[in-house]
Amino acid sequence: MEPQVIDKVLDTMRQFVREEIIPLEAEFLAKGFTAMLPKLQEKREMVKKLGFWCPQIPEEYGGMGLSLMEHGLVSEVLGQTPIGHFVFNCQAPDAGNMEILIDHGTPEQKEKFLLPLVRGEVRSCFSMTEPEHAGSNPVVMSTTAVKEGNSYIIDGHKWFTSAADGAAFAVVMAVTDPHASVHQRASQIIVPTDTPGFELIRNISVMGEPGDGWASHAEVRYSDVRVPQENLLGQEGHGFAIAQERLGPGRIHHCMRWLGICERAFELMVKQALLRELGPGTVLADKQTIQNWVAESRAEMNAARLMVLDAANKIDKQGVYASRNEISMIKFFVAGVLMRVLDRAIQTHGAMGMTDDTPLAYWYRHERASRIYDGPDEVHKMVVARRIFKQYR
Amino acid sequence: MEPQVIDKVLDTMRQFVREEIIPLEAEFLAKGFTAMLPKLQEKREMVKKLGFWCPQIPEEYGGMGLSLMEHGLVSEVLGQTPIGHFVFNCQAPDAGNMEILIDHGTPEQKEKFLLPLVRGEVRSCFSMTEPEHAGSNPVVMSTTAVKEGNSYIIDGHKWFTSAADGAAFAVVMAVTDPHASVHQRASQIIVPTDTPGFELIRNISVMGEPGDGWASHAEVRYSDVRVPQENLLGQEGHGFAIAQERLGPGRIHHCMRWLGICERAFELMVKQALLRELGPGTVLADKQTIQNWVAESRAEMNAARLMVLDAANKIDKQGVYASRNEISMIKFFVAGVLMRVLDRAIQTHGAMGMTDDTPLAYWYRHERASRIYDGPDEVHKMVVARRIFKQYR
Amino acid sequence: MEPQVIDKVLDTMRQFVREEIIPLEAEFLAKGFTAMLPKLQEKREMVKKLGFWCPQIPEEYGGMGLSLMEHGLVSEVLGQTPIGHFVFNCQAPDAGNMEILIDHGTPEQKEKFLLPLVRGEVRSCFSMTEPEHAGSNPVVMSTTAVKEGNSYIIDGHKWFTSAADGAAFAVVMAVTDPHASVHQRASQIIVPTDTPGFELIRNISVMGEPGDGWASHAEVRYSDVRVPQENLLGQEGHGFAIAQERLGPGRIHHCMRWLGICERAFELMVKQALLRELGPGTVLADKQTIQNWVAESRAEMNAARLMVLDAANKIDKQGVYASRNEISMIKFFVAGVLMRVLDRAIQTHGAMGMTDDTPLAYWYRHERASRIYDGPDEVHKMVVARRIFKQYR
Amino acid sequence: MEPQVIDKVLDTMRQFVREEIIPLEAEFLAKGFTAMLPKLQEKREMVKKLGFWCPQIPEEYGGMGLSLMEHGLVSEVLGQTPIGHFVFNCQAPDAGNMEILIDHGTPEQKEKFLLPLVRGEVRSCFSMTEPEHAGSNPVVMSTTAVKEGNSYIIDGHKWFTSAADGAAFAVVMAVTDPHASVHQRASQIIVPTDTPGFELIRNISVMGEPGDGWASHAEVRYSDVRVPQENLLGQEGHGFAIAQERLGPGRIHHCMRWLGICERAFELMVKQALLRELGPGTVLADKQTIQNWVAESRAEMNAARLMVLDAANKIDKQGVYASRNEISMIKFFVAGVLMRVLDRAIQTHGAMGMTDDTPLAYWYRHERASRIYDGPDEVHKMVVARRIFKQYR
Repeated sequence: MEPQVIDKVLDTMRQFVREEIIPLEAEFLAKGFTAMLPKLQEKREMVKKLGFWCPQIPEEYGGMGLSLMEHGLVSEVLGQTPIGHFVFNCQAPDAGNMEILIDHGTPEQKEKFLLPLVRGEVRSCFSMTEPEHAGSNPVVMSTTAVKEGNSYIIDGHKWFTSAADGAAFAVVMAVTDPHASVHQRASQIIVPTDTPGFELIRNISVMGEPGDGWASHAEVRYSDVRVPQENLLGQEGHGFAIAQERLGPGRIHHCMRWLGICERAFELMVKQALLRELGPGTVLADKQTIQNWVAESRAEMNAARLMVLDAANKIDKQGVYASRNEISMIKFFVAGVLMRVLDRAIQTHGAMGMTDDTPLAYWYRHERASRIYDGPDEVHKMVVARRIFKQYR
Repeated sequence: MEPQVIDKVLDTMRQFVREEIIPLEAEFLAKGFTAMLPKLQEKREMVKKLGFWCPQIPEEYGGMGLSLMEHGLVSEVLGQTPIGHFVFNCQAPDAGNMEILIDHGTPEQKEKFLLPLVRGEVRSCFSMTEPEHAGSNPVVMSTTAVKEGNSYIIDGHKWFTSAADGAAFAVVMAVTDPHASVHQRASQIIVPTDTPGFELIRNISVMGEPGDGWASHAEVRYSDVRVPQENLLGQEGHGFAIAQERLGPGRIHHCMRWLGICERAFELMVKQALLRELGPGTVLADKQTIQNWVAESRAEMNAARLMVLDAANKIDKQGVYASRNEISMIKFFVAGVLMRVLDRAIQTHGAMGMTDDTPLAYWYRHERASRIYDGPDEVHKMVVARRIFKQYR
Repeated sequence: MEPQVIDKVLDTMRQFVREEIIPLEAEFLAKGFTAMLPKLQEKREMVKKLGFWCPQIPEEYGGMGLSLMEHGLVSEVLGQTPIGHFVFNCQAPDAGNMEILIDHGTPEQKEKFLLPLVRGEVRSCFSMTEPEHAGSNPVVMSTTAVKEGNSYIIDGHKWFTSAADGAAFAVVMAVTDPHASVHQRASQIIVPTDTPGFELIRNISVMGEPGDGWASHAEVRYSDVRVPQENLLGQEGHGFAIAQERLGPGRIHHCMRWLGICERAFELMVKQALLRELGPGTVLADKQTIQNWVAESRAEMNAARLMVLDAANKIDKQGVYASRNEISMIKFFVAGVLMRVLDRAIQTHGAMGMTDDTPLAYWYRHERASRIYDGPDEVHKMVVARRIFKQYR
Repeated sequence: MEPQVIDKVLDTMRQFVREEIIPLEAEFLAKGFTAMLPKLQEKREMVKKLGFWCPQIPEEYGGMGLSLMEHGLVSEVLGQTPIGHFVFNCQAPDAGNMEILIDHGTPEQKEKFLLPLVRGEVRSCFSMTEPEHAGSNPVVMSTTAVKEGNSYIIDGHKWFTSAADGAAFAVVMAVTDPHASVHQRASQIIVPTDTPGFELIRNISVMGEPGDGWASHAEVRYSDVRVPQENLLGQEGHGFAIAQERLGPGRIHHCMRWLGICERAFELMVKQALLRELGPGTVLADKQTIQNWVAESRAEMNAARLMVLDAANKIDKQGVYASRNEISMIKFFVAGVLMRVLDRAIQTHGAMGMTDDTPLAYWYRHERASRIYDGPDEVHKMVVARRIFKQYR
């Protein structure tokens, strides 16, 4: 897309977010996802009409066909509100599942699972993490898929299967060959959630909220779940490789989303500092501590943004493998900036920062996960350092 | 109390907390206060029988009569669980209201308001902060109490009137003389919540939870609320002075409560680090980053605890006025330690740290307020620095 | 310059720094500037032959004519050693004085002062900061220049007139009109150091070292110093404006120099971590704390570098005025990264990090000034925040 | 000593430091130790007359006989200036050597080595660290002492043998039994520095200064150094145990010295903030950032001081072994506070903070070692965490 065109698109999206989505925020924070769904569907129709539906999906499947870098910029705009991505149908985990299906799905899988997803008719989930194993080491896994006849029989226990509540199908990571080398044991298999043996135990209460629908994280038990072998995604034993492949672009989208949150939090902080009177003729913005926070936040956000765009550019030009360090570094660097900016914005709001009268408290508690999921900061640092050491050995 | 006696008391309390209260925690986190009240009442009866009821209250009123230092140690023990203080009837804001009533109440006020509180028959609230004014400057206030006949007529708008939901009465800060000097404008007046014109607008949604009963923070409107002048607490114009007076001991109790939270979070972190396997024969506790967190947390908690006990000791010996800097410094120092220890404990738990399967997430979100209420850190730092500068001028 | 050409130039410079300059470092650290001058002059001749002399100076004056961005990249390469810039004749404060003379000098001033500087025959200094006034507020100044006949008579007291020791001339900031508006009071005047009344009181002992020659910071007294009015640089009253103008490009050069220091410190840290055995088969690099430092340093350095290049690009495209925030932000952001990377590198070296057996200790102490000169971090943060607030008012 | 008595002693010492020692500081910083020695000797005579000589040494050997806690308080007072401890003859490494000789010396060793030290007639050094081995693992050592006839023949290479320049003797750690278990290989042996084969290679340039006399850190080679076996300190193989034993009390002294530095730096910061005008009627002290630094420094210093006194108290009551965690924790906690307070004090002084016009720059560079020597912070954290984990296993 031409730079002027994408700029124009982003402007329109920005305006749409501000005028159409942000006004729904308070209700979403108060009532949750399911209660809001009708209103969200209305907005989704508007997005379709604007031609902004599924910005990250190739045009042949019905999306805008944006490049990684372009969709990163979109993700930043949508990230300004917790429901932005959903309204544009580029929310996790569906966006990731669409990517996997596009890259590895058979024509039948695309027909049956991808297209309804892209059309926004159904939702999906991704079922990898297990409560019994450290998420930081995704190759250790107990869920198994055993072949029998034309089927896989899946048994296992997962949690943080986000958005499972109401999803039409799950992409499940399961060990298909326990004797293979560690990175080739698991496969990804599509499991419709109405398959007997699929049991959503609970929406886990996360930071005080079990949530519902798309905005939830389920604990799921797979007991003797039987699906046809044609539900295998890609090749057997490639489960981990497919998941890895997805991390690079996913990271860009997430980091840009976090930066969208930062921008909104920053704006709220600045406005509140100007608004809040401390006494006659003095506002919070006059205090040097607040000024420090504003300047430090701006600098850190700019730094973080340049890093993410640089990583996106490197992925576009040199591929994911060559960009592994960049992809790891933006993870912990941007998550750190996000947490600090949110913290300063809340402190600037005082008691109001604790309330759900702004979205700050929502992000403060739920985005704490940014330092944990997809590998905790500590693992990424270790991995980056080891690669650097290797260059000098 | 003899050191051996208090040590014994603390041991018994510690065991009680562990065996009787912590097992209720999960249910409290899931269902909230009101649903739990019957079970909490049972425990309260047990505490009464143990002779540990109202540890901070003089024996003549039915408490244990502990000194500030002793009750600090109790507060640390009870702080290990979010419902510890309530079970012993020394929870905020009731504990503070009891203190005020003991020090400033008339015999009639004590009979009518204090004794039911001490007996645990009713709850109360304290109504000071206003949404229109910065909480960091408590002398600026719009709520007024105008005399008419034998009554005060109170009009105003408050929020963060914690525990108003279900409270029998509120202690309200209201301007009684707008022309007085800035620290003598306001008075404290007791307002039964069934007085016409007292309106609980909402339990504010704080960090995703409106809460209920004692575990809530209300927005309240006072419209033409008429109470007899005998409901004045202490002298007219002394509202701010009484509030200030309460801050010293209250700070000790709060800081020790925070340290109780730290101890529990620390224990959870250490145990999880030992439990969580990363691979064959390796646990999280073997990782140096986790070791750093454990050592830094232990050091910071020890430092914080020594500071609080030192401040308590100074208050006991030299009074609140001479200890103002210590009282301010423990505020921001201990709150900082609390936030860091909670953060490390959550990160150690990974995804589980985000859930309500431990109390960490509850404290992470609700104790974020520790850096805000009773004067944000920034105000305390400013005040301390100015006093220090004054000594050198 | 074509990207490939500049890449080639940088490679050659990198090799030159490594093979020709770094080997002189130990001797420089031990003996100081003057003792090293003959050897440095040899290297300067080599640089001239390579065609890399004065990279930042337009070709018409005898330099390489690099753009701001290109010279930034050069500055990063040269910054890897404390004597890199001097060998290429682009060291502060001479580089800044050359720029001022090129932009504002009369033909006579260029002939007499600029050309010998560019040829490397003389050195110069810049005399602005006064011990009696906060450096953070450069418009407050006591030094005066009074007209008499065809002369200015200069009286004042300066310090941190870096490199005054052995300089041929000083560019002096002096108040020419005390009644003008605050930013138009001062002018820049060239004062040959052999003018009667110019007194170098001392090379200030900075971090234990008075230093000598170029590597020194002088306290200077100007007593009745008489220079012809034709020594005025630019217009009268424009002293502050000229100084400001110089800050943008100067900041890029400095920040890239700091990043060169970071790169060298990072390399030393990584190599030492791989070298230092802790026991049989274990090296420091195996420790997670060191791994954290390596990963965090790499991420922060990348972030900082992207910010500086982005600022350089913005200056090139939109000018200094539009880039003021970026110019301020890289100041405090990059200085912070610099201090942290140096600190980690020293800690990784243990006792050796304290010695002058590496350049780390030199940078640790002397680059501490990076957070102070050209406006302390605190002033830049305040200024950035105020500009941001203005956009929202 | 009665509390009133020790308070009085401390007051007198404080006054002495202020009136007699601090005035020598500038000259010490400019000229170094040897040039100052005559003036320092004068002050030492005054201290003897005041009865404050060797405060840490039992009265029977000619000291004041203070307890660990009392001497800690003295160390804090003396720490306010870099030459305080030397003037009272309780400087490292002599103080440590005196302790070892008192506890483990034979009557002959005491006569020959201890008494001249206590009388201040000679100086000594402690020779442990080796450049080839990580100081963080003191049990790995290459220097050997081989018995031959009545002698030990010592061969090895040491560095950071502080104060070796001009010392009368060294206490050398050397392996006497390479086949013993790791903690029993080494012994401590007294080596007069005039023994043939003792070679002071250089005073290592540390942070730009080789230093001289007491204020230096030597690299030493031991080549075929022959000393009588009666120079063995304590039992053979006990070298490491004796060194360990010394660490507890030495840590208290060091940490209290660091807190003395903090107090002085804090005072300099506060005074400078009040003095430095930013404009008409405004001083640095009016800026909130400076206020933050003052309040945070005061809080951290108080916390650190309480921790050290608590550790001293625990050592006094329960011994070094039971206090190992406390002794480790004050190491990294107080060193951290020290570095932060110095950093803020320097930043408050602006350019002046970089100069040797205050002692801040001296401490900034030389006390950087506080995080390295006697085990780097990282090792202490690891050790503390492992002990804590052990309690929960």
